[in-house]
Amino acid sequence: MEKFELHILGCGSALPTTRHFASSQVVNVRDKLYMIDCGEGAQLQFRKSRLKFSRLNHIFISHLHGDHCFGLLGLISTLNLLGRTAQLHIHSPKGLEDLLAPMLDFFCRQMTYKVLFHEFETNTPVIVYEDRSLTVTTIPLRHRIPCCGFLFAEKQCPNHIIREMVDFYKVPVYELNKIKNGLDYTTPEGEVIPNSLLTRPSALPRRYAYCSDTICTPGIIEQIRGVDLLFHEATFADANLPRARETYHTTATQAGEIAKAAEVKKLLIGHFSARYEDENILLEEASIVFPETVLASETLCLNV
Amino acid sequence: MEKFELHILGCGSALPTTRHFASSQVVNVRDKLYMIDCGEGAQLQFRKSRLKFSRLNHIFISHLHGDHCFGLLGLISTLNLLGRTAQLHIHSPKGLEDLLAPMLDFFCRQMTYKVLFHEFETNTPVIVYEDRSLTVTTIPLRHRIPCCGFLFAEKQCPNHIIREMVDFYKVPVYELNKIKNGLDYTTPEGEVIPNSLLTRPSALPRRYAYCSDTICTPGIIEQIRGVDLLFHEATFADANLPRARETYHTTATQAGEIAKAAEVKKLLIGHFSARYEDENILLEEASIVFPETVLASETLCLNV
Repeated sequence: MEKFELHILGCGSALPTTRHFASSQVVNVRDKLYMIDCGEGAQLQFRKSRLKFSRLNHIFISHLHGDHCFGLLGLISTLNLLGRTAQLHIHSPKGLEDLLAPMLDFFCRQMTYKVLFHEFETNTPVIVYEDRSLTVTTIPLRHRIPCCGFLFAEKQCPNHIIREMVDFYKVPVYELNKIKNGLDYTTPEGEVIPNSLLTRPSALPRRYAYCSDTICTPGIIEQIRGVDLLFHEATFADANLPRARETYHTTATQAGEIAKAAEVKKLLIGHFSARYEDENILLEEASIVFPETVLASETLCLNV
Repeated sequence: MEKFELHILGCGSALPTTRHFASSQVVNVRDKLYMIDCGEGAQLQFRKSRLKFSRLNHIFISHLHGDHCFGLLGLISTLNLLGRTAQLHIHSPKGLEDLLAPMLDFFCRQMTYKVLFHEFETNTPVIVYEDRSLTVTTIPLRHRIPCCGFLFAEKQCPNHIIREMVDFYKVPVYELNKIKNGLDYTTPEGEVIPNSLLTRPSALPRRYAYCSDTICTPGIIEQIRGVDLLFHEATFADANLPRARETYHTTATQAGEIAKAAEVKKLLIGHFSARYEDENILLEEASIVFPETVLASETLCLNV
C-alpha cells in the first residue's frame, strides 16, 4: 500500500504548556509532505519527527489565530538558511500574505526561494490542491474568525492487471491502459472478455479529515462521511460545555458524536485545553460515544 | 546573598536543531525576571524552566535577526490569554515596533495589557534599564546588522551595620542610614567613631555580561572587565575561523581570549552552529585559552 501517514507535531491549544506544542501536523502521501497549521515550534517538531524539509512544498493554514501560524516565520527563515530553491506554497484564509510580507521582507532578505500565498474563502468547500494522486478540499468550520478544515483524499487508482489472464488472452500491450481504466477486451475473433476477468480492483482510496478549530458543526458530517481517519478538535471536557460554546470550540463528547454520525473509521482528538493535566478524561468522554478514538500526542505517527 | 541567576532557554544559532532552541535567556535578579532575546519557542522553554510570567516585565533584544526575536509574538499572545495587566517593556535596536505592531494589532486584539517598546542605538553603551538594585547597559557589538550585548550590574549595597557596636555606642536610630552609607558617627561627647568600626562592607556587586551575536571584538574588553559571568557566543570551532569572520561570528578560541583578556571569573559559551553534533570541541578549544569555561545548554541555571 502506498504511504499515507499523519504526523502530529503539536496538539495543544492557544496556551502552550510543557506537555504540548501549538497546532501543527504533517500528512505524508507517498513521501510528499503536506503541513497543516504551523504553530510556534512547528519547525522544531518537524525535525524531531525526522521529516525532510525538501519534501515539503505545501502548507495549509486553517485560520489566522497565532497558535496556528506563528511558526511560519521561523520555518520560512530556516528553509532560506538551508538554501532551498523550490517554491513553497502557503494556502490560507485571506489576510495572511499582507501580514507576513513586511516581516519576510525584513527578516528574510535575499530569499533563495519563493513563497507563494494562495488565499481562499472558508464558507464553502474549495479544492485547494490537486495532483494525480490526491486532492485537498477545505471543510467549512465555524470558529470566531473565518476557519476551515482540510479533507485529504486519495484519488482512485486504476485497476491492477491480472498478468496471467492478460497473457492467456494475448492482450496487446497498447490495450492495457484501457483495461486498467475499466474497459472490457474484445479479441480479434470478436469474443468480449469482461474487465472483471482481466483485473482486480485497486485499494479503495483513503481519506483523512482535519477539523480544527470549530464549534460543534454537524454540517460537516456529509463531507467527512466514512473517512479513514478524522482529526477533530476536542478542546474541552463535558463539564466545560458552556466554555466550549462561548469560545467556539468542541467538547470530546461532541467530537465523538460527529465521528459516530459520520461513520468514520477512526477518530483522533486533539487541540487540548491547557487546563487538562491528564487528557484521559477527554479520551474517556469521546470513547463512550465512539470507541475507536485515540488521543493525539506530539510526534505520534498514524497510518491513515 | 540575594538571588542573581541566569537561566538558558535556548543556545542554538539561526538553524534550530533537535538539540537546541534559538537564543533566549532569563536573568533572575532578586526574583525580578529579565529576558534577553526571545527566539522561537522561548515561551515554551520559559515554562519548562518553571519561571513565572508574572515576574517578567522587561525583555532585551540584542538585534533584529529572527532567531533572536521570533518568539516575541507567541509570548505576547500568551501573556494576553493569561489576562496579564502589567505593562511589558521591550528594549531593542530601532525597527522592532514598526515590524511587530501590525501583527500585534491583528493577532492580539483586545489586549489586556500594554506592550511598550523602547528602542536604542547600538553604537555606544546606553543604560537601558535602572532600578535601585540593578542597571542594564548595552555593550556595542559588531554583527551584520546593528547589535549589542547587555551588561547586568548590581548596584553597591549600603554597608551592613554591626549591631553590637551600634548598641555599644548607643547610636540613635535616625543616624543609622548615614552610617550605612559610609559616614562616621560622632557621639554627643564629640568622640568620632570611624565608620569601619560600626559597619562591615556589603557583598561586592555582581555583574553578568551577555555578548551575542558578534565578530570577535576586543573593544568590549574594558566594559566587561572582571565580570562574574560572561556569556559569549562561540558559534564556530577554530577550523571554521574564515566562516566566523565572513558571518560576523566568534570562534570558541576567540571567546576564550576575550574572557582571558577581560579577566572575567567564568565564561559561558553558546550560540552553537548546528554543524556541531557534539559541542565538546568548542568547550575544549575555549578551555585551552580560558579554563573556567562552561557550555550553555537548555534549562541550565547558573548563579552569577
